[in-house]
Amino acid sequence: MFAATAALLLVLAPTDDEKAIRAVLDAQIAAWNKGDLDGFMAGYWNSEKLFFISGSKTTQGWKATKERYEKAYKGEGKEMGQLAFGELNVESISPDAALVRGRFDLKLSKEDTGGRFTLLVKKMPDGWKITHDHTSK
Amino acid sequence: MFAATAALLLVLAPTDDEKAIRAVLDAQIAAWNKGDLDGFMAGYWNSEKLFFISGSKTTQGWKATKERYEKAYKGEGKEMGQLAFGELNVESISPDAALVRGRFDLKLSKEDTGGRFTLLVKKMPDGWKITHDHTSK
Repeated sequence: MFAATAALLLVLAPTDDEKAIRAVLDAQIAAWNKGDLDGFMAGYWNSEKLFFISGSKTTQGWKATKERYEKAYKGEGKEMGQLAFGELNVESISPDAALVRGRFDLKLSKEDTGGRFTLLVKKMPDGWKITHDHTSK
Repeated sequence: MFAATAALLLVLAPTDDEKAIRAVLDAQIAAWNKGDLDGFMAGYWNSEKLFFISGSKTTQGWKATKERYEKAYKGEGKEMGQLAFGELNVESISPDAALVRGRFDLKLSKEDTGGRFTLLVKKMPDGWKITHDHTSK
């Protein structure tokens, strides 16, 4: 009975990898909500192979993705607002990869917006990084 | 030199898994374009855990996903049209999982539409199946 309870806890408890992946997303949120785009971008794989999809548009590479965020949220008359993630689900695929699903909510002074995302995250030498991001409203 | 060329071909040639995954998508397209929704749905994991995201809406489970497609494309005044996939990229994640990115184009009698998708596909006892689909316009 005790063993069964312990086994159940083991199954339900997030793994260290899941905790580490959630910590990356938490750090992104904290950075975003301080207006720190560089801190937010630290969650992404700094590679030309980073793949970012928003709606029907694709952006390839970390630099281009950062520029896209700058244009959309740091440009004249733009604001980063307050971001939150919810309904997060981390699905381990291999010891070095996981799929993350979730919703985002963004409060802006003029409107609230939000949508869904699918992330592929991979364990890199410098920690878990988002290598693919598909976001839609 | 010959060995180097052979090695290069080996790197560039699609693996058997990639061919099998592309065959699943080709079969989906062929089914869709014949108006065969059951055939199209055969590409999806027949499980309550199938996860489908379209825009900001989520649908969970194979049955609910099929009903969503029926409502959107088989309902009164609806049509399936002609579907095509393009810019396909298959990224192997593990021997049993891959991420597929691509664009879709759908020709309807009244309008053409299209967008992007991210799929997680997994090798199941009955072949490669889509277990997660994030689609957006």
